[in-house]
Amino acid sequence: MFRKVLIANRGEIALRVARTCRELDVRTVVCHSEADAASAAVRFADEAVCVGPAASRKSYLNAAAVLTAALQTGAEAIHPGYGFLSEDPDFAEACADAGVVLIGPPPDVMATLGNKASARALMARAGLPLLPGGVEPVDAAQAQELADGIGYPVIVKAVAGGGGRGMAVVHSRADFAAVYAGTRATAESLFGDGRVYVERYLRTARHVEVQVLCDTHGAAVHLGERDCSVQRRHQKLVEETPAPNLPPGLAERMGEAAVRGALAAGYVGAGTWEFLVDEEGRFYFMEVNCRIQVEHPVTEAVTGLDLVRAQLEIAAGLPLDVARCGARRDGVAIECRINAEDPTRDFAPTPGVLSEFIPPGGPFVRVDTHAFTGAEVVPFYDSLLAKLVVWGPDREQAIARMRRALGELHVKGVCTTASFLDGVLATPEFGAGRHHTSLVAELLGQA
Amino acid sequence: MFRKVLIANRGEIALRVARTCRELDVRTVVCHSEADAASAAVRFADEAVCVGPAASRKSYLNAAAVLTAALQTGAEAIHPGYGFLSEDPDFAEACADAGVVLIGPPPDVMATLGNKASARALMARAGLPLLPGGVEPVDAAQAQELADGIGYPVIVKAVAGGGGRGMAVVHSRADFAAVYAGTRATAESLFGDGRVYVERYLRTARHVEVQVLCDTHGAAVHLGERDCSVQRRHQKLVEETPAPNLPPGLAERMGEAAVRGALAAGYVGAGTWEFLVDEEGRFYFMEVNCRIQVEHPVTEAVTGLDLVRAQLEIAAGLPLDVARCGARRDGVAIECRINAEDPTRDFAPTPGVLSEFIPPGGPFVRVDTHAFTGAEVVPFYDSLLAKLVVWGPDREQAIARMRRALGELHVKGVCTTASFLDGVLATPEFGAGRHHTSLVAELLGQA
Repeated sequence: MFRKVLIANRGEIALRVARTCRELDVRTVVCHSEADAASAAVRFADEAVCVGPAASRKSYLNAAAVLTAALQTGAEAIHPGYGFLSEDPDFAEACADAGVVLIGPPPDVMATLGNKASARALMARAGLPLLPGGVEPVDAAQAQELADGIGYPVIVKAVAGGGGRGMAVVHSRADFAAVYAGTRATAESLFGDGRVYVERYLRTARHVEVQVLCDTHGAAVHLGERDCSVQRRHQKLVEETPAPNLPPGLAERMGEAAVRGALAAGYVGAGTWEFLVDEEGRFYFMEVNCRIQVEHPVTEAVTGLDLVRAQLEIAAGLPLDVARCGARRDGVAIECRINAEDPTRDFAPTPGVLSEFIPPGGPFVRVDTHAFTGAEVVPFYDSLLAKLVVWGPDREQAIARMRRALGELHVKGVCTTASFLDGVLATPEFGAGRHHTSLVAELLGQA
Repeated sequence: MFRKVLIANRGEIALRVARTCRELDVRTVVCHSEADAASAAVRFADEAVCVGPAASRKSYLNAAAVLTAALQTGAEAIHPGYGFLSEDPDFAEACADAGVVLIGPPPDVMATLGNKASARALMARAGLPLLPGGVEPVDAAQAQELADGIGYPVIVKAVAGGGGRGMAVVHSRADFAAVYAGTRATAESLFGDGRVYVERYLRTARHVEVQVLCDTHGAAVHLGERDCSVQRRHQKLVEETPAPNLPPGLAERMGEAAVRGALAAGYVGAGTWEFLVDEEGRFYFMEVNCRIQVEHPVTEAVTGLDLVRAQLEIAAGLPLDVARCGARRDGVAIECRINAEDPTRDFAPTPGVLSEFIPPGGPFVRVDTHAFTGAEVVPFYDSLLAKLVVWGPDREQAIARMRRALGELHVKGVCTTASFLDGVLATPEFGAGRHHTSLVAELLGQA
């Protein structure tokens, strides 16, 4: 195992990674921006290095500063968390060149899977089903032709996109040209890569993803699926495992497909194969996330595994304990992402000082948060304040437990999405497991 | 299920019970003293009733006030938690007379098991092994004779004692008469019952107890054992399940003995059969606790059961799901009791205002606490501030996780026992599972 790991992230995931490092007796260095100097992760870590001012592109996205911090503190490996540099193949390449282990897949695998076009092509070759659409980037005229052929609605997605950014739905032929041009411009500005592609849009699909672990010795396993269909503007709000109400055998087939895709890609580490499931119970490959995901705790709750520990062990060259990975799938786990946002003002972020923050607790409740009474929620980054994760022997008890935990969370100083999420969990659609990716938009009257 | 339950307790256990009630859609009434009017349980409950001033005997031990609160608020049942009125057969009788369900065994069973002499006699008849000693109360001369016959050290215990109070060890014949008289006086003052009995004292025994559930339909199961050998002055500090390093088959034999004892007693509800295990791996019945115990969460963590839910279901007349009770025993769980005490001043309680309280979180960490930033730790009751409970796939990982969680707990305003407990967990004795009930005294140089 490594003696020292640099954590190139912030917020709850930086603390999450540091916790597992501590349990493994691995020293931690947290790099942080000037705005995060007093963060929970900085307090908890063994060492902290400021890598730049508040703006992400000058700190958390500053590959040179992060790599320098690792080299100067003698960290043997970097855990990138999610977002920021976690899926940047150039950063992965720079780490490799500098002799620092980046915890994740090799740079070439990350590059292939990070590009949605090449990822689609590779997964198609591995036999994974795809939605009708363009695998290769196309020009505006070809794209219009493709969209007409698929039939509306279609979705235009940035080749370099991810995390719900750089995509737009087109409902009719007349809107296509404008949305196509707009998405190209957005993609160019967000990712420095204006290429987009077109795909059939499933309005009422389920988002179901498969957690995969692959070691450097050729072993690949999946840890079951997660349903992340409760989304607002393509951002996940509620995640659970197992996915409720899937047709018999479907989850197993998706798991096998994900492992097949991982082996075809030469994947290493923890990764997620994302799929859409349509109303007829067919599944379609969407994309691969080459990193730990926000929603990984629900998989931990039903398997008993520590996925960050697995990432570290794989990166250190240890073999997967395949038997243990498959030994337990028990009960139901649900995660709610509590954002510091105001649902009554179109979910505008509400930064500020947490004058009171009392997390829920008690049986089968896990809280991952960087928040504490007196902490400042800074305006520079995403608005994730806390993740509440509950486990129950069945879905009904898990939902009741989550609603109890949401009610127990006590926050003053910023608005949160807790009561909004409670409302989602209280709907008959969610209760019956008949929800889909447009449920939240429907509830908000924006469908 | 009940529509409304009164919780006749305070601190973390009042909140613990209210959480499960909320999940079951049962309305909660918390009764509280004047000193606890701003407590976490009062905040969380649906209703709150003040039952008297700070002193326990005028509030939490005031059976008439508590029962009146239940009747006036229309509560159909009372959950007594642990301590206070939870094992008082007179209170149980009064509840029964008033038509209010007391969540626990019937009054006569509570009376028989609450008296250590009659409990010993009953368990002896059920075939449970006892330590050499006096089953019946004896006078001073008989007691001296008995002690001489057993051989020193012996322990003198109050018949009405419990929770580590009203007991004293005698190391030599010369000290016996004085300790015997002193323990009688203590028992008289603590319990209003000066009767004591004498038993062989095992200095290096393990405290191992078995969790039992019995329904009103004759079903009785055990949920495995807990090792609670880390004690200071007979007060448990660290508890875990399963008990490490027991001889093969011993835990199963103890589980069967506990169920046999429960059936012999006509037990109903959640109860604990406490045993001592000597260095030769023999076990001896000690006593029964007719209530939920402080350390119940470790059993929940490895079984996936909610024991308070089980208590409520049994009290409502529902049958035990015996298959589910036996379905899962997975991994290792450890609990640390964090007390607001100063280990450098002989563990003197340190009441005060919590200027900062940040609980640990993340994977497989559960926190049960009534503490929050700004809360006052009042001086009138026990000093339990929080229970940290961790789960791990094996004992080594569970210990590492607990040490991480202890290090993460951040408290200002009162002293806590967190670092002291970390020191206990770091000892080779605890690490190897070779600890016993005198380990803490040895570490403190008080053995």
